[in-house]
Amino acid sequence: MSDLSSTERTRHRRLREQGRTNRAELFDVLEAGFVCHLGVIVDGAPMVVPTAYGFDSDNLYIHGSVASRSLAAGGPTPVCVTVTHVDGLVLARSVFEHGVNYRSAMIYGVPRPLEGEEKLEALRILTEHTAPGQWDYARRPNRKELAATTILAVSLEEASVKVRQGPPDDADDPHDVWAGVLPLAATWQPPVTDPAASHEVPDHVRLRAGTRLG
Amino acid sequence: MSDLSSTERTRHRRLREQGRTNRAELFDVLEAGFVCHLGVIVDGAPMVVPTAYGFDSDNLYIHGSVASRSLAAGGPTPVCVTVTHVDGLVLARSVFEHGVNYRSAMIYGVPRPLEGEEKLEALRILTEHTAPGQWDYARRPNRKELAATTILAVSLEEASVKVRQGPPDDADDPHDVWAGVLPLAATWQPPVTDPAASHEVPDHVRLRAGTRLG
Repeated sequence: MSDLSSTERTRHRRLREQGRTNRAELFDVLEAGFVCHLGVIVDGAPMVVPTAYGFDSDNLYIHGSVASRSLAAGGPTPVCVTVTHVDGLVLARSVFEHGVNYRSAMIYGVPRPLEGEEKLEALRILTEHTAPGQWDYARRPNRKELAATTILAVSLEEASVKVRQGPPDDADDPHDVWAGVLPLAATWQPPVTDPAASHEVPDHVRLRAGTRLG
Repeated sequence: MSDLSSTERTRHRRLREQGRTNRAELFDVLEAGFVCHLGVIVDGAPMVVPTAYGFDSDNLYIHGSVASRSLAAGGPTPVCVTVTHVDGLVLARSVFEHGVNYRSAMIYGVPRPLEGEEKLEALRILTEHTAPGQWDYARRPNRKELAATTILAVSLEEASVKVRQGPPDDADDPHDVWAGVLPLAATWQPPVTDPAASHEVPDHVRLRAGTRLG
């Protein structure tokens, strides 16, 4: 299992210094998911909370309710946002070489609360990334709802991507047994209509069923 | 999306004070997955890293390579371990009520490095939780490998569980459109044999294909 746990911030790469290839990898990882794990420091201890996200070429966008407490307490506060796709189990010949095939992005920054048009646009991006088609189909936020929503932007400037794919690395191990990968796939299921709703499932929802996430 | 982001440590529950029901919920969430997100503080900033885990009735077990840097730097250091299962998208009538159906456990503690028999047993638990059957099938760690492995125990005493399931909460919204849930399911796929391996896929691996994670 060690492969999934060896990232250190010291090895992170400033993506803008690395050019297009790694930025493309970053966007591939962000595009493939919609829930991240947000790390903040609260009362001197780390707190890690899952939350939905969206992104554009410059920023990742999240709801602010998680970070708001530490933001409110001490002004700008550093966060780490991690997006992980678990692609399979690496079943090696030795226990020591067991691991996980995965793609993961880590983004470091100080979140910036958005206001006005920028906030509305970020909420649109977040909504459309998570639930494509719903920005035009559902009722958009009114003034009161928008005021009750905090949207934070985290710059994508400091980010790193880690990927592990392929078979185990211990083909030379003398323990002669089967080895390989047990892949894992997340798939959207048929929609479940709210008992209180009477409309047909719209195409933009119906057509996601059976497609894979990530 | 706000449902997935409203946990605050202040609302956490000491599970031992809450009795069996919530401990059962905690174990259900831990049993349903095998990758957690570990939050540590490094150089004053949070770092969130995905890593595999195992657990027993008292502790969660993880590899120590992630936390080792902050552990080494300053002795005992607080961590937050979060396990999340994303069960579906909540597609409401209003954008404001959109959210995610999920189950999540957050565990707070100061990791304790294990040694000797306790370390070997924790590695067995971690391996068997992640890759059931492999402790007996694969080659167990030799002395050198075991020495190169750090295993940390995080007590399950301080933990909280958050769950959101079911249809959207805005049935009274005047915007009369379809609403419901788009479920998401993670399923083990057929094993992919290492090109360098010559044995048949063992039953304990083969029979997982087609089963759901979580």
